[in-house]
Amino acid sequence: MAWAVARPGFKVPLFRFIDALPACRDAADVLDHLDGYLDTPASPWLVRAGLHVADAMPGGARVASAVARGGVRRMATRFIAGQSAEEAATALEALWRDGFAATVDLLGEKTLTAADADHYACRVAATLAVLTAAATSWPEDRRLQADPWGPLPQVHVSIKATALAPLLAPATERQGIDEAMARLAPILDHARTEGATVHLDSEHDEVKDATFALLREIGAAYPDGPQLGCVVQAYRTDSYDDLRALVDWSARTLRRPLQIRLVKGAYWDAETITARAHRWAPPVWAEKADSDANYERCARLLVERAGDVRPAFASHNLRSLAYALTAARRAGLPDDAVECQVLYGMATPLHGALRDLGYRTRIYVPIGELVPGMAYLVRRLLENTSNDSFVRMHSSHGGALDILLAPPESDLEPPAAPAVAATDPDDPGPFVNEPDAELRRAGVRRHLVDAVAATATGFAVPVRIGGDERSTGETLPSVDPGRTAVEVCRSALATPADAAMAVNVAHGAFADWAARPPRQRAAIVFRAAAALRQARDQFVGLMVVEAGKPIGEADAEVSEAIDFCEYYGREALRLAEGGAVIDVPGEANHLRYQPRGVAAVIAPWNFPLAIPMGMVAAQLVTGNTVVFKPAEQTPGIAWRMAQLLYDAGVPDAALAFLPGIGEDVGPVLVEHPLVASISFTGSKAVGLDIIERAAVVRPGQRHVKRVVAEMGGKNPIVVDTDADLDEAIPAIVQSAFSYAGQKCSAASRLIVVRPIFEELMDRLAGALDLVVIGHPSDPAVKVGPLIDADAQRRVERYQALAHREADVVVHRKDVPGDGWYAGPMLCVAPADHPLATDEIFGPLLTAVPADDLDHAIALANATDYALTAGAFSRSPAAIERLGMELRAGNVYINRHTVGAVVGRQPFGGYGLSGVGSKAGGPDYLHQFVDPRAVTENTMRQGFAGEG
Amino acid sequence: MAWAVARPGFKVPLFRFIDALPACRDAADVLDHLDGYLDTPASPWLVRAGLHVADAMPGGARVASAVARGGVRRMATRFIAGQSAEEAATALEALWRDGFAATVDLLGEKTLTAADADHYACRVAATLAVLTAAATSWPEDRRLQADPWGPLPQVHVSIKATALAPLLAPATERQGIDEAMARLAPILDHARTEGATVHLDSEHDEVKDATFALLREIGAAYPDGPQLGCVVQAYRTDSYDDLRALVDWSARTLRRPLQIRLVKGAYWDAETITARAHRWAPPVWAEKADSDANYERCARLLVERAGDVRPAFASHNLRSLAYALTAARRAGLPDDAVECQVLYGMATPLHGALRDLGYRTRIYVPIGELVPGMAYLVRRLLENTSNDSFVRMHSSHGGALDILLAPPESDLEPPAAPAVAATDPDDPGPFVNEPDAELRRAGVRRHLVDAVAATATGFAVPVRIGGDERSTGETLPSVDPGRTAVEVCRSALATPADAAMAVNVAHGAFADWAARPPRQRAAIVFRAAAALRQARDQFVGLMVVEAGKPIGEADAEVSEAIDFCEYYGREALRLAEGGAVIDVPGEANHLRYQPRGVAAVIAPWNFPLAIPMGMVAAQLVTGNTVVFKPAEQTPGIAWRMAQLLYDAGVPDAALAFLPGIGEDVGPVLVEHPLVASISFTGSKAVGLDIIERAAVVRPGQRHVKRVVAEMGGKNPIVVDTDADLDEAIPAIVQSAFSYAGQKCSAASRLIVVRPIFEELMDRLAGALDLVVIGHPSDPAVKVGPLIDADAQRRVERYQALAHREADVVVHRKDVPGDGWYAGPMLCVAPADHPLATDEIFGPLLTAVPADDLDHAIALANATDYALTAGAFSRSPAAIERLGMELRAGNVYINRHTVGAVVGRQPFGGYGLSGVGSKAGGPDYLHQFVDPRAVTENTMRQGFAGEG
Repeated sequence: MAWAVARPGFKVPLFRFIDALPACRDAADVLDHLDGYLDTPASPWLVRAGLHVADAMPGGARVASAVARGGVRRMATRFIAGQSAEEAATALEALWRDGFAATVDLLGEKTLTAADADHYACRVAATLAVLTAAATSWPEDRRLQADPWGPLPQVHVSIKATALAPLLAPATERQGIDEAMARLAPILDHARTEGATVHLDSEHDEVKDATFALLREIGAAYPDGPQLGCVVQAYRTDSYDDLRALVDWSARTLRRPLQIRLVKGAYWDAETITARAHRWAPPVWAEKADSDANYERCARLLVERAGDVRPAFASHNLRSLAYALTAARRAGLPDDAVECQVLYGMATPLHGALRDLGYRTRIYVPIGELVPGMAYLVRRLLENTSNDSFVRMHSSHGGALDILLAPPESDLEPPAAPAVAATDPDDPGPFVNEPDAELRRAGVRRHLVDAVAATATGFAVPVRIGGDERSTGETLPSVDPGRTAVEVCRSALATPADAAMAVNVAHGAFADWAARPPRQRAAIVFRAAAALRQARDQFVGLMVVEAGKPIGEADAEVSEAIDFCEYYGREALRLAEGGAVIDVPGEANHLRYQPRGVAAVIAPWNFPLAIPMGMVAAQLVTGNTVVFKPAEQTPGIAWRMAQLLYDAGVPDAALAFLPGIGEDVGPVLVEHPLVASISFTGSKAVGLDIIERAAVVRPGQRHVKRVVAEMGGKNPIVVDTDADLDEAIPAIVQSAFSYAGQKCSAASRLIVVRPIFEELMDRLAGALDLVVIGHPSDPAVKVGPLIDADAQRRVERYQALAHREADVVVHRKDVPGDGWYAGPMLCVAPADHPLATDEIFGPLLTAVPADDLDHAIALANATDYALTAGAFSRSPAAIERLGMELRAGNVYINRHTVGAVVGRQPFGGYGLSGVGSKAGGPDYLHQFVDPRAVTENTMRQGFAGEG
Repeated sequence: MAWAVARPGFKVPLFRFIDALPACRDAADVLDHLDGYLDTPASPWLVRAGLHVADAMPGGARVASAVARGGVRRMATRFIAGQSAEEAATALEALWRDGFAATVDLLGEKTLTAADADHYACRVAATLAVLTAAATSWPEDRRLQADPWGPLPQVHVSIKATALAPLLAPATERQGIDEAMARLAPILDHARTEGATVHLDSEHDEVKDATFALLREIGAAYPDGPQLGCVVQAYRTDSYDDLRALVDWSARTLRRPLQIRLVKGAYWDAETITARAHRWAPPVWAEKADSDANYERCARLLVERAGDVRPAFASHNLRSLAYALTAARRAGLPDDAVECQVLYGMATPLHGALRDLGYRTRIYVPIGELVPGMAYLVRRLLENTSNDSFVRMHSSHGGALDILLAPPESDLEPPAAPAVAATDPDDPGPFVNEPDAELRRAGVRRHLVDAVAATATGFAVPVRIGGDERSTGETLPSVDPGRTAVEVCRSALATPADAAMAVNVAHGAFADWAARPPRQRAAIVFRAAAALRQARDQFVGLMVVEAGKPIGEADAEVSEAIDFCEYYGREALRLAEGGAVIDVPGEANHLRYQPRGVAAVIAPWNFPLAIPMGMVAAQLVTGNTVVFKPAEQTPGIAWRMAQLLYDAGVPDAALAFLPGIGEDVGPVLVEHPLVASISFTGSKAVGLDIIERAAVVRPGQRHVKRVVAEMGGKNPIVVDTDADLDEAIPAIVQSAFSYAGQKCSAASRLIVVRPIFEELMDRLAGALDLVVIGHPSDPAVKVGPLIDADAQRRVERYQALAHREADVVVHRKDVPGDGWYAGPMLCVAPADHPLATDEIFGPLLTAVPADDLDHAIALANATDYALTAGAFSRSPAAIERLGMELRAGNVYINRHTVGAVVGRQPFGGYGLSGVGSKAGGPDYLHQFVDPRAVTENTMRQGFAGEG
């Protein structure tokens, strides 16, 4: 461990190996993992030597595997007190007799299904029963059994709220709390009658508010007991405010003062990573000193309000503990008014010292098996090896107590979110992704819900060519697919003649637009990005009501549209600098990229803002003029987008807006001799037809057309035997069922290596049962309506087929009556069944078992599509292989397969999924320009002026 | 001038302006040029202020123009003594009476036609007559009229050999010398009878040997006189050897010792630039000190051998002159044994000082008009402003004589050519172009001629699939198009079944080849490059005899093939590093490029090595397997190329060789569902047909095919009124007629702004008359045979049409009888005539007059093709505009339009000339790969290992 600490290059693979170890099937599998993670130059030579010995020796694999398992088991038993309630009772009695109180934590925090949660709640209840019964025989210990405000139960259990309710999450907080309350009721009743403290642990940021909300509901329901406890994490920037509110609430509500355990917090890495990745303000302090200072501030408040609450200080940092205990003494509190809490197996000399000083010392004791305990174990290892942890500093600084005990220096200024400002075309700076709304905050959710409710509907969408807006005789209503009585807008219908005129006008505008300085065009798309930021709420609302898109996904789509503008604007400026060519004396060479002409942009409805904005902005910013044909289903969003572009400065003639029926105007656009390129996103059938038609050079045509087509997918997710199912299952649900599976990137095939097939199906079914179906304006909803009646009929047809010909594992039928809903389905079918080969574009996931990873990859690749693919594995070799071999334009390892982000996951397929170079990637704009090399002989009369 | 010297940023545009000035039509035109060149921040404010005054004032343009012309004229009259022979006589008499001898130089050195050369020779003869007649009345001056070895004529004329014969060039040296001798005869006769020295000046490197060869022929023909002279350029690394040889020759051959003028040399910039651009060893010393030291070495030899030759020292460098004169005295020579030579108008105080010291001082006196004198003027200005010229140093160092007169430090080690070595795939280093053979050296030419003569013919070319070579029942002879009785090889004819089998085999080999490490594939193409270097002679020979390609162009094509291998090898390694994507914490993103599958490569005959090598190497090195279908006309070269690739390590199954008839196997390859991409170079008709066929997705096809097609062109050259016709005409001839116009890049339309139309036609006709037609194994030949009888019939059809419907300006009929020759033709036709719109692919250039530059650009762009375009202009604004507006993938300004070089001029067209991204450019390989984004969630149990 000491060795690992000093070598970050070894620490990461070591922890990953430890994480994966419980999922290994046998000795050879352990060795493979050991080999994959640890046979690197950063590993100590002994480890590497061991690996090679294992290869060479008969039985070597078993030996090495046993050594590895043994090592990890030793690490685990250091931190985990036992597997069963009975083992726990024995361990706790020993501690009690040694002068320590305890709080029991049942490992297994990740529950994905109702069954998981029921199981957890039963285990807690059973453990509680065993412990309360056992405790009756423990000797009395006054110091442990009372404080100035009354008696304290001998038994103390720490519960993770999320383990009680898979829906305990920001968007489904209400459902989650109700579930949790139902599962807690027997536990609370038992604790009240038999005498036990029920303590809610703190977890990630996402569930902090829900956990406190649950606590308040418990308190309201059980004001007289049992004794309750909770945790405040001093590393959070809002913890002091939370603490004050909790103290007030306890004073106001509870008869037995709430026990508050003050900790620093154990998820700093994850919280910081999540916030940085989303460009949100981190909820935690940036520096250790800030957390330490805040800990001390919170400790002062706790001792001031002791009696309203029961203070407990949990830390292994000597200074923090000493500060809190001194503050208590200085405030005149007796030593038994506060409690010290420590972790089982961590810094054990400290435990005894605190006890010997006379403090009530409570040990946090995890109970359970290695697999569910792995997250806990890794957190403990991280703490032990973090560079600025007290434990780590203590070991490296030796006895320099004056350094270790120095007061933390901090002004407690919370870190801010990175600034978001309009882009200066003269100095755009590097591209960064637009932050999504921070929907884990209730206020942010409320704001968006209100915005959606306020969405203006009932407007008219015209045809607009050369700045001339007009309606048409026939019009098409666009309705809310989740409430089909609501007409969002009414769209004009362009005719083939309109299409031809639009091309001609765009062609007439081309020379001027193409000749503008690239910076001027970039400035326009940057202005469009700024306008989208301003109009964010409006577009979210429209996407919810016109496209049936869940509110959070609609929000993310606005970010994506902004990203496209910001990214392509910068890329166009880069392109304007030209390509790399070699100069020699006497010769000046330039490789320039020039626009191609009129572009037809034919857009889909499922990303009704981001995809057309990306396609249109890319063509415009490179100097092409555009005829934009939006999808029939989402003319309203498209029209608002077009208006935004005109307002941002796109000339009237450079962008024609052509709502209408694809069959009417599509062929005209595709075949028109003045159309130079076609940007299409949609179905394979239409895409291939466009490719064929566009390849014919027609009279009057002066170029070969370029088609950039993004088509469909039948996207697989492969699950290997050592996958972390806790991670895989939510990701599979998200990949297959978010937005009712109506994404070209959605997973529709689940290929599972057989040993874990049944387990995965069971848990996935349970998770799918919990998916919230409904109108997408409710942030809890993951599955909204399908886009239209055709889509509903198609999905229902495949669902009927599944009932006839496949094993249906889940078919949810609890869908709203008003709207084109289809209930999510999970079925098992042969790999060559239409359910496993046709793109269904709905909430239907077909699972196929595979014999091994080879077979799984072969099944995954047995499709003409090649769009997205996912894979779950914890074997480095398998990860490498899956990344190389899965036939897909976008491969995602150990995460969901949807929501590609501009600049990070350039998006697009090959095979029959697409033609062209990935949207949101560095090669995309090249497709919309022709390269030109200009060479000037700079030598005149033998004189070149160089060198 | 002093100001210009200090500011290189101003010197270059100033010289360019001075160069262009004589070609300006009127005052406004002068102002435009002045403005274009000099209105930059580097210009002195007075110039810029003047320009703006000129804009604002009525008549301002005329004033500024007059000022500019006046200034340049003053500069010119400082260096040029007069325009006519009579003016020269007056000036020379004045010099004579002032104590100076003179040598007259008739400006107008660039002769492109026989008429130009006749005109020059007549001017020399007439000037000689005027001067010898005039000199009879000059007073006797013993110092100027005799040296220790006898009398010296009063009249002395310096002649540029190239002005006597446009063909006096390396490849046509024999023709050039014969021509020059014929034109010199009356001059030499007159000089002998009337008493005059005939002196051959030295020029560029290219004609140094030819000039000395001419001198020897003169000496052999006129051993008794007239007095002869020549120049040795001490800046040349071979000048000491040349000098020794000349001295020996003079001693052996001539009755009157040869006068040798020792100079440093005036073309250092150009010689160095040319050599660096070609990566040849520079023929001149790298440092000024080397030239100075060599000058002194040569001076010692001259004084040692005085008597065998008559030494003359020409320099404005005081140290060099003093050294030479001191050496003469130290050798015991009387002062009249040596002569000093100086330039008219340069460092005039020196002239008087030398005369006053008692030395015979001869002034080099240019006579003539400003336009032809511009090159001379720019050379003098360069000398005056070069940073290390003595004149310049004198003015900047003031009187620090000890610095100026310090001995030059040099070990006289000649600069070497950059090394060419096989590329190490582990450390390939930056790409550099392969040097062509230095054909300006007679030895190199002889070597290649011998290699061509030794070309092995009569071999059999098999079909080769999966390593299995076999002949076919039917075969096709491939003959020398310039000697149709010679069979180069006999080629098997692949059947459609062969084609299908080849695709299947290549498909079977794909997975293995694609999975190889990119470095391994790069290593193979680097080995191919090295093998091509070794087999250079063999390929040159085959291209001459099988493709009818002139020897120099065949040589350059081998370089291009090597370049493709070296460039794409490096590009593939760059591609293997992946594309630029953004990472955020907790997520690892990679943008990878993977091969697509089986590629069909369908190659043309006109670049039978470089184009297929480029297409095949690009597909192979990116991991695709290839079915290579060579052109019917050049199976022999293709087979040798394929063998070279197999030998370099391309697996048998990864490359199929499929000679045959395009109509038989082409459609099978294009339509085969297992073919992923098609690389085609050839005609527009075939290319468009391929594009259409390939766009249809057929049963069993799992991808959309990618077609990269390079098709035809009807390439224009635009000549603006201020073009330098001396530069334009040879470039036009090269562009339109080299390889008999059989290049897709060849110019076939000449668009000339009207004021210079007639002059250009006249001179171009004269230049075309001199083009050497014949079998391409003769290095003198520019126009060889057409590729086959079909081509000959097609060209003859258009030529007949020209005779019927156009103005035929030139139609050469002096073609060999044995072979598919067509004589070069220049005609004038309307812009919409088939002669001006059809791709003829032969030696036929159609000229079209244009009203102005706008009209010229419109005419140039009035074609569906967009491949190459050329333009000649000396107006910065026009150059910028032509570079931006000419519709062509490759635009060439002030040079020929053929011979694009890998890495420097990425090559390829758009419009109906091509689909795809330029061969030999940074985007080319992207076409043969599919992008894949792989995203790994690196966060496990809340732990990512970053930050």
